[in-house]
Amino acid sequence: MSNFSWNIKKKLKNSRARVGVISTPHGDIETPAFIFCATKAALKSFSTADAKKNNTQIILSNTYHLMLQPGSDLIAKHGGLHKFTGWNGPMLTDSGGFQIFSLGNGSVADEIKGRKSNSKIKKTLLSINEEGAIFKSYIDGSNILLSPEKSIQIQRDLGADFIVAFDECTPFNVNRDYTYESMLRSHRWAQRSINSFDSQLKYKSKYGSAGPQEIYGIIQGGIYEDFREESIYFNENLIETFGIAIGGSLGSNKDEMQKVVNFTASKLNEIHPIHLLGIGDPVDIWTFVEQGIDTFDCVSPTRLARHGAALVKGKRGKINIKNSKYKENLRQIDEQCSCYTCSNFSLSYLHHLFASEELLALQLITNHNIFFMNNLMNTIRNSIKENNFEQARKEWLNE
Amino acid sequence: MSNFSWNIKKKLKNSRARVGVISTPHGDIETPAFIFCATKAALKSFSTADAKKNNTQIILSNTYHLMLQPGSDLIAKHGGLHKFTGWNGPMLTDSGGFQIFSLGNGSVADEIKGRKSNSKIKKTLLSINEEGAIFKSYIDGSNILLSPEKSIQIQRDLGADFIVAFDECTPFNVNRDYTYESMLRSHRWAQRSINSFDSQLKYKSKYGSAGPQEIYGIIQGGIYEDFREESIYFNENLIETFGIAIGGSLGSNKDEMQKVVNFTASKLNEIHPIHLLGIGDPVDIWTFVEQGIDTFDCVSPTRLARHGAALVKGKRGKINIKNSKYKENLRQIDEQCSCYTCSNFSLSYLHHLFASEELLALQLITNHNIFFMNNLMNTIRNSIKENNFEQARKEWLNE
Repeated sequence: MSNFSWNIKKKLKNSRARVGVISTPHGDIETPAFIFCATKAALKSFSTADAKKNNTQIILSNTYHLMLQPGSDLIAKHGGLHKFTGWNGPMLTDSGGFQIFSLGNGSVADEIKGRKSNSKIKKTLLSINEEGAIFKSYIDGSNILLSPEKSIQIQRDLGADFIVAFDECTPFNVNRDYTYESMLRSHRWAQRSINSFDSQLKYKSKYGSAGPQEIYGIIQGGIYEDFREESIYFNENLIETFGIAIGGSLGSNKDEMQKVVNFTASKLNEIHPIHLLGIGDPVDIWTFVEQGIDTFDCVSPTRLARHGAALVKGKRGKINIKNSKYKENLRQIDEQCSCYTCSNFSLSYLHHLFASEELLALQLITNHNIFFMNNLMNTIRNSIKENNFEQARKEWLNE
Repeated sequence: MSNFSWNIKKKLKNSRARVGVISTPHGDIETPAFIFCATKAALKSFSTADAKKNNTQIILSNTYHLMLQPGSDLIAKHGGLHKFTGWNGPMLTDSGGFQIFSLGNGSVADEIKGRKSNSKIKKTLLSINEEGAIFKSYIDGSNILLSPEKSIQIQRDLGADFIVAFDECTPFNVNRDYTYESMLRSHRWAQRSINSFDSQLKYKSKYGSAGPQEIYGIIQGGIYEDFREESIYFNENLIETFGIAIGGSLGSNKDEMQKVVNFTASKLNEIHPIHLLGIGDPVDIWTFVEQGIDTFDCVSPTRLARHGAALVKGKRGKINIKNSKYKENLRQIDEQCSCYTCSNFSLSYLHHLFASEELLALQLITNHNIFFMNNLMNTIRNSIKENNFEQARKEWLNE
């Protein structure tokens, strides 16, 4: 009997929004769910114990960062990421592909989110060939090959519940032909990932530590609907995975992104939980849940906190605690919020912590933002269960 | 009936070591106790909720910093420091004198702890006269007078349970005559502090927020025993305070410091709990408890954590987590320690967090160091209660 399962519990009639349960050896995830990023095996400024207290269901770590520092061997010696990080709940690692290609080419995330490419970031991707991708380590400058087999072996050592097939995260600024060739290569890499995963699952990991794991495939195809359909066919019929992630370029703006996700999600069967990579804006989350997405991940809740932004309801979505207008504001971020930060501290105090360069500021805003995202997902789930999704969205966004 | 009391519960026969209870409106403090520094109304990288969980009894904040940023008015509007910081336990503020004089002259703490004076720190003390001290604000460069009356008014607004009389923290590198003149002025300032405190206690603070408070006097006299005796006489007979702190210059080295503290403590009656300013080294704490000190404060547990140093038993006292020898060490800081950090994380993980510049590192080491200091004080209290102080010290220091 598998330790993993995926069950849809309730679907809305007038959209693809659904609630479900992903079961893992480390507990259940009620979906729609948000996955928080513990990129280097740590949530930014935040303990895993506090994440749990704030209703976090699942976190992820990044293969790219951990293979370079401290190395997956060392984490395997600990018994895997759960032991290393003190997080006993469900966990996911990505394949390393996204970082290699986004840091190497200029970020796809930058494109779809409208950020300017940061030319100061060194291009570290050296070459891509059938075997895999060669990139330069940001730790010691050495040249490193990441292949499907190596990514899977590393993810086996890391020991998260869910791992992801190795793919090329195709940039937006390439032509239709390159997108197609890249998709076919990613399919071949996915097949090699699955083969490697199946053969490695037969054995214990190097240090006998990793337990059962399941794998996600990734739908490629860029903005081209015919490619997306071909990639869906490949993922649903030619390989066998637990879950499916929607990856690749989602276009150059939010409208295009919504169109690509909507088309892709509409064509997918219900056998797999569907993950959408790199999305954390609450407005987007309401949209994509409606389109049938089950899980999301993004660095935004913790990254925003580091920049002094606290998440709030409404279309605006956040307030800047560092703004001088909060210097003497004795109210909370959100007086309806029951998180530790809102229960104990004024905007004025939080503003003071930033003004005084106290690191506690980051911890307290992160606390609020993590609680906020989990509360958002809980509100979405309840609204689906109670058939008032549209009303709940309007209330959340103050529309 | 007063909300404050001081009771000695047990004394050792062969030394002045004693356990007692300081009662305050915000709870009891079992002594000997350590007071953690929330300098700018925040423990460094650590929440007050976590401090409580780690058995912290009392914290202090600094008048000097808070009067400049965010200003005591704003904290009074919150209802005082307890509400501002979310700390519901006992709390102390100092008078501001120590920072004005130590930052202004070069630090006394640097002298007694053998640190080199940091010439990069701008000298901010502009002048001292009978009225008070004028210093330059590090926030906006303005010239500010701090007088006994102003210090007490600010401390009333801040609303900690314990406040401290305003004094000149006499530097070490002055002659006997200056030390005497300075002591006499500090006595006059102490009398003005008490007068101001008594008159202000009759009224509510500006925003009607502060509750009952008690005040500490400070024994001056530098390294001169005749001056120390005169200052003791002043503090015990000519003014009335709840507690007494041993302040002023304690000499230029540890031997001199022990001699000054031992002499001073030996002459004090038992009516007041005795606080020793700025001491946090466990070896010193064992020594000074034996000499009759009841409470200590120091920034060291949180400051050491920020530099990667975790406190451990033994004379060595600390280990440097950043040392590469811990990179692959799967053991804990202290396998006997039951703190959150030692219960969940390896030295290897903590080393990785520093190597990866993850701020969680500071939080986790701070957690250990705060737990460690509270455990130290608890061990000391138990050893006094059980008449095995000397044995407990030897075990703690691995002598």
